[in-house]
Amino acid sequence: MILTVTLNAAVDVTYRLDRIQQRGSNRVQSAAQRAGGKGVNVSRVLAGLGHPSTVSGLAGGRNGQLLREDLAASGLPERLLPIEAESRRTIAVVEQDEGDTTIFLEPGPVVSATEWRAFLTLYGALTQEAAAVVLSGSLPLGVPRNAYAVLIRLARIHGIPVVLDADGDALRSALAAKPTLIKPNAHELERATGTGNPLAGARALMSAGAQAVVASLGPDGMLACTPEGVWQASPPERIAGNPTGAGDAAVAALTVGLVTGTPWPERLRQAVALSAAAVLAPLAGEVDRAAFERLLPLVTVRHIRGAPAGR
Amino acid sequence: MILTVTLNAAVDVTYRLDRIQQRGSNRVQSAAQRAGGKGVNVSRVLAGLGHPSTVSGLAGGRNGQLLREDLAASGLPERLLPIEAESRRTIAVVEQDEGDTTIFLEPGPVVSATEWRAFLTLYGALTQEAAAVVLSGSLPLGVPRNAYAVLIRLARIHGIPVVLDADGDALRSALAAKPTLIKPNAHELERATGTGNPLAGARALMSAGAQAVVASLGPDGMLACTPEGVWQASPPERIAGNPTGAGDAAVAALTVGLVTGTPWPERLRQAVALSAAAVLAPLAGEVDRAAFERLLPLVTVRHIRGAPAGR
Repeated sequence: MILTVTLNAAVDVTYRLDRIQQRGSNRVQSAAQRAGGKGVNVSRVLAGLGHPSTVSGLAGGRNGQLLREDLAASGLPERLLPIEAESRRTIAVVEQDEGDTTIFLEPGPVVSATEWRAFLTLYGALTQEAAAVVLSGSLPLGVPRNAYAVLIRLARIHGIPVVLDADGDALRSALAAKPTLIKPNAHELERATGTGNPLAGARALMSAGAQAVVASLGPDGMLACTPEGVWQASPPERIAGNPTGAGDAAVAALTVGLVTGTPWPERLRQAVALSAAAVLAPLAGEVDRAAFERLLPLVTVRHIRGAPAGR
Repeated sequence: MILTVTLNAAVDVTYRLDRIQQRGSNRVQSAAQRAGGKGVNVSRVLAGLGHPSTVSGLAGGRNGQLLREDLAASGLPERLLPIEAESRRTIAVVEQDEGDTTIFLEPGPVVSATEWRAFLTLYGALTQEAAAVVLSGSLPLGVPRNAYAVLIRLARIHGIPVVLDADGDALRSALAAKPTLIKPNAHELERATGTGNPLAGARALMSAGAQAVVASLGPDGMLACTPEGVWQASPPERIAGNPTGAGDAAVAALTVGLVTGTPWPERLRQAVALSAAAVLAPLAGEVDRAAFERLLPLVTVRHIRGAPAGR
C-alpha cells in the first residue's frame, strides 16, 4: 500500500461556461465537484494503475464529509483525520471557448495543535503498513511550518521512502529531512533555488538534502537528477489538454517505480507518458489509458551524465 | 406577516482578494457564506425595518441545510420546502483593489413535479396568513415556466396582493395573472419590452397585465407607473458602494408601503432612500440605517402625470 498524505485536502469544484464576463454576472452551464487535493489525485491515478493506496490527511466540516463520501464512491480507502474547521473548496472556472481555466483557492482550515498531534499518531500507524509515503500540496494554517520535515523523519524511522511534491517554504523546510524524491515543476524549482536552469536548480536541492530530484518541465518533459546519474525524458509530441493533475500523475508513476525498483530510465519514461496521458484526460486524477499505452514507447530518454564521481 | 418566496434560494459565497489573475491561480484572502437569493434578501431588509416575514421557497441537499441553519441564526422564520436536489451556490469574487465584483451563478437544482405540487400546497397554506406575497428571482429547472402566474393566481384567490421581482420569461409569463406590483430594473424592463424608454416600457408591462410598475433605474432613482399616476423619485446624490441587494431593499420598502397603504409619493421616497442605504451596506440584505434616515428627506419625488383618463 502507498500512503498519500494531503494535509490541505479540498472539495474541487469545476464550473464550465463559454466565457467569463469580467465584473459581470456569469451563469455557469455545469457545476461538478469531487474530492481533491494533490495527494487525492495521486491516489486516483494509483488506483487506475492497479496499485492500492490509502488517502490520509486532514478533513473537516461539511466539505470534509463530502470528501469522505466522494472517496468512498470512488472506491479509494481513506484514513483522513477529522478536524473541527471546514476543509476548503477550490473553484476552477473553465472557459470552453478558449479552454482557459481560472482557479480560486479558499484559504482553508486552521488546524489546532491537538489535531496536529492526533494526525502524527495516525500517520505513525499508517506508515508502518506503507511501502512508500507521498506528501503532496500546501500546508493548512496551524500546522508547523516544518510539518513535512517531521513527516519525512517519522517515515524514515521505519525505513519507508518518502516522495514530496510541495512548493515554497513547505518544500524548502523539508529538504534537511532528506526526502527520497522530490518533484518540483519549473516554477517551483526556480522559486526554491532562484535559478531558471533546471539542472543547476535540481543540484542545489540535492545539496540541500533531497536524495533525488525529478523536475517536471511541462512540454519539455522531465529532468531526473539522481545518485545513479542524470536523465532527461521528453514526450514525442506537444500534448494539448488540461495540465491540472499532470504533476500528480507523474508523482504516482515515480512512486510506483520507486516501490518496484524500476531503473531510472524506464521510471522516467513511464512518468512522462502517464503525465501526458493525464493532460489528455478531462479531470485531475484521471489518465487516458489508451494514450498512455500509445505514448509509452515513443518517449525519448537521454542519459545526460553518469553517477557523480566517488560513488 | 409578509411571505417572501425564493424558488431558487442559494448559498451566497463571497470571496475577497486584491485582484483576479485571469487564467491563473488565485488565493482567496477571505471566504464567507450565507443564505441568499432575492427573496431571502427582502426578508432580511424587512426584519431590519421591524416587519415580520416568512421565508419560503425550495431548498435541498447540503446547501439547503446550510441555508436553513443560516436563516435560523439570523432569526428569520422559514418554511422552505425540502427538495431532493442540491440547492445552488453563487460565488461573488470581490476585487478589493478596484471594488469590482465578478459573480458566478450555479445552474441550481431540478425540481420534480411531485415537489412542485407539494410546494403549491405549502404556499396555499402560507398565503392565508400573509398580508402580502413577494415573489423574487429566477425559476429552477423543473418548475413550470408559468410558475409565477400560478402563484399570483393562488394568492389573488385569497385577496392577497403580490409583488413580483423577476426577469425574462419568468416575468413575461406572469403578467397575464395581474401581479399587484412588479419591480424591473432598467435592463429587465428593456429585455421584457424591447424599449429603452422606461416610461414606455412600464406602460407596455401595464398593458400586458401588471397593475403597477416601479422601474429601478440605478443612480436615476425610480419611476412608478400606477393607476393613480406616474412619479419619478431621485436620490440626492450619486451613491457609491455595493449595488447587489439594492433592488431587494426597494422591493421590501414598496411591499411595506403596499401593506400599510402609504401614498405613492411617500412609498417611492422610502424605496429610493432604502435602496441607496442598501448600496452603502457591505452585504446584500443589509441596510445602512443611519444613511436611510439621512437620505429620506432629501429624496426628490416628481409627479409626472395624474391618473389615466377615465379613472
